[in-house]
Amino acid sequence: MTGLVRPQTLRGFRDLLPEEMLLRGEVVARITRVYESFGFVPLDTPVLETLPTLLGSGGEEADKQIFVVREAAKPVTAEGEATEFGMRFDLTVPFARIIAQYHPQQIKLPFRRYHIGPVFRADDPQPEQGRFRQFTQFDADIAGTSTVAADAEIVALASAAFEALELTAGSGYVIRVNNRKLVDAFLTGLGIEDGEVTKHVLRVLDKSDKITAEALRAELGEGRFDVSGDRIRGVGLAPELIDRLLAFVAVQQDTRAKTLDELAGLLPEGDPGVAEVREFLAHLEALGVSEASVKLDPGLARGLAYYTGTVYEATLVGAGVGSIGGGGRYDGLVSRFSDDPVAAVGVSIGIDRLLAGLSNLGISYGARRTTADAVVLVMPKVDPAEATRIAAELRAAGIATELYVGESVGKVGKQLAYANAQGFAVAVMAGGKEIEAGTVTIKDLQAGSESRAQIADNSEYRAAKSAGQFTVPRAELVATVTSVLNPQESDAS
Amino acid sequence: MTGLVRPQTLRGFRDLLPEEMLLRGEVVARITRVYESFGFVPLDTPVLETLPTLLGSGGEEADKQIFVVREAAKPVTAEGEATEFGMRFDLTVPFARIIAQYHPQQIKLPFRRYHIGPVFRADDPQPEQGRFRQFTQFDADIAGTSTVAADAEIVALASAAFEALELTAGSGYVIRVNNRKLVDAFLTGLGIEDGEVTKHVLRVLDKSDKITAEALRAELGEGRFDVSGDRIRGVGLAPELIDRLLAFVAVQQDTRAKTLDELAGLLPEGDPGVAEVREFLAHLEALGVSEASVKLDPGLARGLAYYTGTVYEATLVGAGVGSIGGGGRYDGLVSRFSDDPVAAVGVSIGIDRLLAGLSNLGISYGARRTTADAVVLVMPKVDPAEATRIAAELRAAGIATELYVGESVGKVGKQLAYANAQGFAVAVMAGGKEIEAGTVTIKDLQAGSESRAQIADNSEYRAAKSAGQFTVPRAELVATVTSVLNPQESDAS
Repeated sequence: MTGLVRPQTLRGFRDLLPEEMLLRGEVVARITRVYESFGFVPLDTPVLETLPTLLGSGGEEADKQIFVVREAAKPVTAEGEATEFGMRFDLTVPFARIIAQYHPQQIKLPFRRYHIGPVFRADDPQPEQGRFRQFTQFDADIAGTSTVAADAEIVALASAAFEALELTAGSGYVIRVNNRKLVDAFLTGLGIEDGEVTKHVLRVLDKSDKITAEALRAELGEGRFDVSGDRIRGVGLAPELIDRLLAFVAVQQDTRAKTLDELAGLLPEGDPGVAEVREFLAHLEALGVSEASVKLDPGLARGLAYYTGTVYEATLVGAGVGSIGGGGRYDGLVSRFSDDPVAAVGVSIGIDRLLAGLSNLGISYGARRTTADAVVLVMPKVDPAEATRIAAELRAAGIATELYVGESVGKVGKQLAYANAQGFAVAVMAGGKEIEAGTVTIKDLQAGSESRAQIADNSEYRAAKSAGQFTVPRAELVATVTSVLNPQESDAS
Repeated sequence: MTGLVRPQTLRGFRDLLPEEMLLRGEVVARITRVYESFGFVPLDTPVLETLPTLLGSGGEEADKQIFVVREAAKPVTAEGEATEFGMRFDLTVPFARIIAQYHPQQIKLPFRRYHIGPVFRADDPQPEQGRFRQFTQFDADIAGTSTVAADAEIVALASAAFEALELTAGSGYVIRVNNRKLVDAFLTGLGIEDGEVTKHVLRVLDKSDKITAEALRAELGEGRFDVSGDRIRGVGLAPELIDRLLAFVAVQQDTRAKTLDELAGLLPEGDPGVAEVREFLAHLEALGVSEASVKLDPGLARGLAYYTGTVYEATLVGAGVGSIGGGGRYDGLVSRFSDDPVAAVGVSIGIDRLLAGLSNLGISYGARRTTADAVVLVMPKVDPAEATRIAAELRAAGIATELYVGESVGKVGKQLAYANAQGFAVAVMAGGKEIEAGTVTIKDLQAGSESRAQIADNSEYRAAKSAGQFTVPRAELVATVTSVLNPQESDAS
């Protein structure tokens, strides 16, 4: 074994094998169709960015999780000769860079783009909970607009994406929406006008589905010690204020408009945040977004520091994977790069979590295990090019076909075992007898496995072995394979 | 400007804007359909690998070009606490790792997979020549077979991919194939049996289309000095041997079989390399691969150290981008990871070079500039939710629609300028007059631009401005937009 490199996947990373990739491809294709039907156009950016682009854009926590890259050929020196780069931790910061870099020449505003790609976070991976250090985000954003119609477009887009995945609004997926301005206004009404305190409150509220109610109260108040004994600093609110705040964020009525009405009653008359949310809800209504799919939840906060207004979060009901997407308005992010401020709003769907959730729910859209329908076997004692010609003929007829090119050439049993393991529908064989007679043998592998499932004794087994196997004139190759693959169609014709 | 981060793309990297991405999507979809029709299944691996996985797998040159990654949160210490990773420089080495790691449990042999993804090389980028530090490879490989039928499958696959891109065999694309065993046998015949010398000869031959004939001779002989004055070590062959070698690698007849016959005449009778190539050519023939598309070129060598048999290289004719793909057999690569040797063969298409070449040739497959066909404008002094309702209605009818959500709400001229710049086909407007009358106005933006192109004077301009503009009852919204988008279809109905 000396000198061998151990084949391994880095901790927190993972390989995607064909069965998972075929399902993933189907999910991505469905979401892409929805994004495009709303007029979003594709964009791609490099995996690497300059460190200044990344550092500070997502807050302290994000900074600590940046993978740093250097050119191996040029070692880091005291003189700082080598350049260091960072791996992107989301697709939103690169999007803000893109706007600052290409607007107004190559990009006109408003600009709506989608972007699917890997992002990287050097955090503590928890693969069993679907947390990886490399994961795929599928984002859609609109830059160059502060209208709440854009916020509603994005929420309607996310809802349409989940509908395209055949999920049911309410019982299958839910999108909770909120606007930070509501909590801001409420805290202002309580006499809390310090922006830092407001941010701290939002960070604590963001944890509300991860910690106990008691821990939540403690963090809004005097703070607490976590299980490891570390002190978690509290916001410092008095118990009476905490009661009122928790009552505010718990407001929930059976329609979005009624929830907003109740919240409005707890805020000063004419609050601009309430007016903004009311307009946003009107656009959601106009877009036909149902009450079951999108709920107004005043307790929703989002972790990342860059959100400024509307925020939202999507969950698959009962899938055990937590949030599978979210986003919001981030009007300040482009200002990191440009004096010309550009407002923006977007959503990010976490493809890995989404797929983990679908898998937990047993949803697979009938995705295939293979891409080929037919496999051509290479029979003993004949010119192997004969099998090659058959494969070429099937492909020319539009039938996806694998030519058996393995080491078991001429060993029919082994090739059939492989064909069954891979899940092909049909195997095609032309041995010496067939070639002499100008015929070809076609085996329906699905029929074989069905009949084998009901086998009672040995003689039945021998009969079943040849079930669904036809020897036909070579000229009928394509027609016969087609009829086995699509029995209804050929019955009809 | 203080405190602003400069928005920039790293040198040697690039952003892909929507127009390029839409064309790229079309090209990738066409190649994917071909790969799948040959039974290849998708696979994905992380961008990062352990350093031992990468180092030494592609040769010294590749090692120097590996981007090294570390977790920022844990600085590199003298005790070696922090872990360092490498960014993959191709998709072949990860594939070899995958086979060693998942065979025989999750992966059965022969295994054919495709993989599209970014790879990274810390070399000196030459963007003007299409050489980037991050680029996209689209690979197809078969592992677990040493049969030349597999080599032929891969070459036929590449040829079918170029055909799917509507390129013509010979005048549009050419794939040159060779087998290292031919040159090996020829050198052995000349008395050169030192494997290192053979490798050196192959490396020099690999440069033959990049350096002058004189420089090539010098490198096969005593060596030379390059333009910078650096000494390039020569192979040390005598001039007479160089003549014979160059004559051998220049052999070219009008069919692959005749080329092989002539080469066979220059090699010992019964040479096993010749027999292998003859069988490979028979499979190519059986697969229907034309002489125009695939040529046998005994001078073809490939740079990467891991190839062991058949090699090939594809070029777009007259596209000025050099090789756009290539590959070969690499029977030793899996042995780096496992005592169980697994033979493999594959091809890699360089998507960035391919797209640069197609662009130089002016080929774009009529790819779209937008994803939405219609845009709904927001008119002055009306409820903006009216536009939102129209957009929702068009989408529900399957018409890809952008709702205008920019800052120029109510400014029709600015919105129309945006609509024209983006390239939408249709703009839909419902102002105060239309809403009162229960109508909607639909503007054919293509018709407008066509008529404007032939404008002679100012009055014609005013007439053209309203060309292709219809006001219809609101109930006819979908039917009217559909008829503008598909004039033929609605004429027929």
